[in-house]
Amino acid sequence: MAAAAEEAAAAAAAAAEGRVRAWAEGQAARGRRVALVTSGGTQVPLEARAVRFLENFSSGRRGAASAERLVAAGYGVCFLHRARSAFPWARVLPPPGPALLDALRLTPGPPPGVAADPAALPALLPALRDYRRATEDGALLAIEFTGLAEYLALLKAAARALAPFGSNVMFYLAAAVSDFYIPTSEMPEHKIQSSEGPLQITMKMVPKMLSPLVKEWAPEAFVISFKLETDPLILIDKSRQALEKYRHQVVVANILESRRTSVIIVTKDSQTPLSLSDEEIAQGMEIEEKIVSYLQGRHTAFIEKKV
Amino acid sequence: MAAAAEEAAAAAAAAAEGRVRAWAEGQAARGRRVALVTSGGTQVPLEARAVRFLENFSSGRRGAASAERLVAAGYGVCFLHRARSAFPWARVLPPPGPALLDALRLTPGPPPGVAADPAALPALLPALRDYRRATEDGALLAIEFTGLAEYLALLKAAARALAPFGSNVMFYLAAAVSDFYIPTSEMPEHKIQSSEGPLQITMKMVPKMLSPLVKEWAPEAFVISFKLETDPLILIDKSRQALEKYRHQVVVANILESRRTSVIIVTKDSQTPLSLSDEEIAQGMEIEEKIVSYLQGRHTAFIEKKV
Repeated sequence: MAAAAEEAAAAAAAAAEGRVRAWAEGQAARGRRVALVTSGGTQVPLEARAVRFLENFSSGRRGAASAERLVAAGYGVCFLHRARSAFPWARVLPPPGPALLDALRLTPGPPPGVAADPAALPALLPALRDYRRATEDGALLAIEFTGLAEYLALLKAAARALAPFGSNVMFYLAAAVSDFYIPTSEMPEHKIQSSEGPLQITMKMVPKMLSPLVKEWAPEAFVISFKLETDPLILIDKSRQALEKYRHQVVVANILESRRTSVIIVTKDSQTPLSLSDEEIAQGMEIEEKIVSYLQGRHTAFIEKKV
Repeated sequence: MAAAAEEAAAAAAAAAEGRVRAWAEGQAARGRRVALVTSGGTQVPLEARAVRFLENFSSGRRGAASAERLVAAGYGVCFLHRARSAFPWARVLPPPGPALLDALRLTPGPPPGVAADPAALPALLPALRDYRRATEDGALLAIEFTGLAEYLALLKAAARALAPFGSNVMFYLAAAVSDFYIPTSEMPEHKIQSSEGPLQITMKMVPKMLSPLVKEWAPEAFVISFKLETDPLILIDKSRQALEKYRHQVVVANILESRRTSVIIVTKDSQTPLSLSDEEIAQGMEIEEKIVSYLQGRHTAFIEKKV
């Protein structure tokens, strides 16, 4: 990053810290617990003026669904999400393409207008009502990121802003964050030319943010991380290793292919599988309902133990 | 790719070829020229069960705006686009997030419903009318891709389907296609573990599709490629090299930072800058209006010369 870009990023993070703190004070005044939910994947540029990026895939569905559930459970939610990833309540809408256009209809008026077709979008009306209620209550504070560096700066800013609220704060770290990046000093200035032959990329490790989050930024908070693997054989070991290394409270462990219907909640001394039955899936229930309900209980126990 | 996945991809491409040909016959029967517009960026997996991808950035705005203009100019447009990238007419809508939810309002009814706020979305009503007209006319055939392999297979299928319509077909190749990929045989099966240290990636060159497109698949067609660079010093040279190498008709050359307001149309014997004046920008005019208008004229001349 150029010096000017770094200054702009620092100013944006400072502004976010002020915004989150003022919002959290309002939540505390109403007696609400606060959750910082991170959601969506980070983008890592491969060039300084980048046309190519390394992306960690995440639709943001898990984070958005969890944010809805946390608000319903009485939390104030700071939703730190990848721009254009799934957003609480808005996720009932298809992306702006033919599916969305076909779900709209011209209303004759006067004046002529555009309305949602209730048959095509039956979930929109209740979702829009819930969204309105949440925003009128101030229960949702949305903050966007795109790049990895931006995500890391905003996470740190939000963590510092929330630290004063101690054990009442839940960190729900569902974002898919890159483990690798290319330092600015090693990045080509211009678009990599394909005429130069096969592409060799060497990426450095991103420092894990869980360590300073737990030790320095918000040491009193209730911290939940997510572990996504494709190999079931290493999932629980990796989760336990993370708990030992970072000393936080919970890992939600999940496998790529079954992540929408089952997870394992791993703590220092427990291992709790949660899953949806076929009947629950048929009813349209989401696994996030069970995850949030379970973690809310653990959070309550955590707060009571600290008092 | 596993054998089953390869078979499924081949079947999907064959189905697309049939669909495009039937649609193009309908267009020809109405005396319409046909344009295949490619749009958006390709996704290249880094793992077999992938959580990480190389992405070529493209919002798809150029392709979507051009497709609207081509339909207005009387073309039938086959829109081969990255899923969730900008879509003709739908691009007036913000992504499904707070901006979209805040632009909707609850209507009391009965029955209660949801309508677009005309003050927040003034462009929606005319866009929806244009979209309806285009789809009722059959002037827009939308086909989606996500991965690079899928894009390449669909481009080939569409090109073969359109070849019989000779010089009446325009290929408008605005998609941002990866130059690099990892062969399946060299891809790790599972998520790359960050504990194994820095990431080394070696990517092979993707064979350029322009060569078989021009020589074999649709040798009579009017073919336009796009060249996006970040370094203005090499832009025209790279464009001329492409024209000499692939023997197609037009390169639309553009620089990342100024791509929305100026381009240079490069042919074997001409170089035509097109740009928006400050006044045109203030009026909300888009550069694609000028690009399509210019290329439509070149296409007419190309057809007349062939007759």
